[in-house]
Amino acid sequence: MTVQSFFPPQRTLMGPGPSDIHPRVLQALSRPTIGHLDPLFIQMMDELKSLLQYAFQTENEFTIAISAPGSAGMEACFVNLLEPGDKVIVCRNGVFGERMRENVVRCGAHPILVDNAWGESVSVEKVEQAIQEHPDAKVLAFVHAETSTGALSDAKALGHLAKQYGLLTIADTVTSLGGVPLAVDEWQLDAVYSGSQKCLSCVPGLSPLTFSPAAIETIKARKTPVQSWFLDQTLVMGYWSGQQKRSYHHTAPVNTLYALHESLVLLQEESLTASWQRHQQMHQQLKQGLEQLGLTFVVKEEERLPQLNTVRIPEGIDDEWVRNYLLRQYNLEIGAGLGQFAGNAWRIGLMGYSARTENIALCLKALEDALTQCKR
Amino acid sequence: MTVQSFFPPQRTLMGPGPSDIHPRVLQALSRPTIGHLDPLFIQMMDELKSLLQYAFQTENEFTIAISAPGSAGMEACFVNLLEPGDKVIVCRNGVFGERMRENVVRCGAHPILVDNAWGESVSVEKVEQAIQEHPDAKVLAFVHAETSTGALSDAKALGHLAKQYGLLTIADTVTSLGGVPLAVDEWQLDAVYSGSQKCLSCVPGLSPLTFSPAAIETIKARKTPVQSWFLDQTLVMGYWSGQQKRSYHHTAPVNTLYALHESLVLLQEESLTASWQRHQQMHQQLKQGLEQLGLTFVVKEEERLPQLNTVRIPEGIDDEWVRNYLLRQYNLEIGAGLGQFAGNAWRIGLMGYSARTENIALCLKALEDALTQCKR
Repeated sequence: MTVQSFFPPQRTLMGPGPSDIHPRVLQALSRPTIGHLDPLFIQMMDELKSLLQYAFQTENEFTIAISAPGSAGMEACFVNLLEPGDKVIVCRNGVFGERMRENVVRCGAHPILVDNAWGESVSVEKVEQAIQEHPDAKVLAFVHAETSTGALSDAKALGHLAKQYGLLTIADTVTSLGGVPLAVDEWQLDAVYSGSQKCLSCVPGLSPLTFSPAAIETIKARKTPVQSWFLDQTLVMGYWSGQQKRSYHHTAPVNTLYALHESLVLLQEESLTASWQRHQQMHQQLKQGLEQLGLTFVVKEEERLPQLNTVRIPEGIDDEWVRNYLLRQYNLEIGAGLGQFAGNAWRIGLMGYSARTENIALCLKALEDALTQCKR
Repeated sequence: MTVQSFFPPQRTLMGPGPSDIHPRVLQALSRPTIGHLDPLFIQMMDELKSLLQYAFQTENEFTIAISAPGSAGMEACFVNLLEPGDKVIVCRNGVFGERMRENVVRCGAHPILVDNAWGESVSVEKVEQAIQEHPDAKVLAFVHAETSTGALSDAKALGHLAKQYGLLTIADTVTSLGGVPLAVDEWQLDAVYSGSQKCLSCVPGLSPLTFSPAAIETIKARKTPVQSWFLDQTLVMGYWSGQQKRSYHHTAPVNTLYALHESLVLLQEESLTASWQRHQQMHQQLKQGLEQLGLTFVVKEEERLPQLNTVRIPEGIDDEWVRNYLLRQYNLEIGAGLGQFAGNAWRIGLMGYSARTENIALCLKALEDALTQCKR
């Protein structure tokens, strides 16, 4: 078999990620590769670190990008902070809360589950109750923005609650970073990871990560080695630290890091506040249009993520038919439901560069057409 | 602080990787991002799988690319094949053999070490002796091409030896894939991983991986869960399998996979045999030139990797001064020594697109100049 070069079409990406990539990010991606120990690359990495500190709103010295997708970032938090036997309060209101539980178990630690229905935020009251019932818990883990449901949780309240009781926090900000307010230091969050392919408009493959001084202390005081060599951040610290000579850990994904750097330069140019506002404004536009089409939201208004709109699929409408039609006729991707929502909800992303008026106009017009065609 | 866009210089990469990226690969990298569940992306992934099967010379159904660098590919082999208490014969003749040992320990398994000096191949005799002394060993792990030293080991003999005694093999082919003969099926290797950034001329960030039917059986018969969620290949099988509906595991690094696809299309166009020959021919050219400069090789001739030339730094020559001079004056990167070889050897890579006459000419002329300048 002879395989030809692959030329993908130009899609408009309005699913749960990857989102549309900013053209400047794609340009940065294909700049000449240099060595991962090149002094100019190291300088770029230092800049990347300060750009990530800005995005996370933190002064954490340990602020990096894991050389793998968000799920590796999640695992990095758990394998570094936990030791066998530790108790972790895990908030579960969608796919990613459940994935956190799996991570806890695979570390030999014990998850205490705080469940909320899919589409709901994490209940701060329930979490406080769980903490009181388990005074020996070490970590509180939760998802700030549940990509599987479109629900936003109160990371500020959860962060402060955890500190009040002396717990460390692990927070998933994969879909929230850059799209809704997030202030790692002010909210006192300890281990926070994200993804490159959501509101940062960068290609998938990297997981921004930041550890507070308290998280670092915990890691340094470990009695057992981190079970993953690749994700052992004690080994990576040397590589990202600007003070000392870079030591080799693994070959950094050089070009993807160029892309992340550029996407963060773009975020800095727009400013975080303006980016949050844009996501909110675009959400309002989309919401009006979706409601005019008769579509209803899964998540109640005050808990809704502007950048991820989960709507119910109307009676008699064929989920897959509609998504295929949008892709075929309009080169438009919207997201399928995940888990409990598979087949009965769509996820319409307005993340990063996808959060633009022209995308919304296309999406609404195309959906209107698809719904009409499907009913025939 | 305001950070500007990053514009890297055009370097010539003749270190231990990343190697020079083929221009067509960089072009492929910045093609429009599409969704990781897009039918066209899935088609591309199927092609990628058959291209990887060609590169590895295998018909293994489970042949994929891990969404992270080679060290994650290494870890994927160990965490999937091993369970706590297993015995593993680990061949150690450089940095990556030692990293294998670390992986074994972190899996709760027991490494039996077979040591060879840095710069030597793995001794097949010593390995056989170790197998005979430890009849309960489950896995033989070795590095085909030691990137830290430039030594090639006899993967064919080691593969056959392991089968003769009923052991599974884990083979590191990070630096060998595409550069020297490798035949996974014929040599009966079970779990084989590589890297994108060496002889494939692709950007760093992916780890090609193949598991034999025997490896898959072992994984399916596990009594304990794989300790890593991200690297648990039982969860990934669904995603890469062409037969069934793709299920979501993690967001694939879409653009980097475009690049790998293109680099493998290039390999197919050239043919594996021609690529192996080119690496060998270029090595002979470089070798002549280096010897004319009075430089000597660390590895003896019959065990030498053509794509990674480790030479001793002459008396009175300042390692760092020379490498900085080459970088500053010629935009040329050669590799420093690693581990035992730090400060006393250079590693000159001729991998993939770097293995060209023009690169060799530049390298030899620049080195001649640097050595003369440094002696002054």
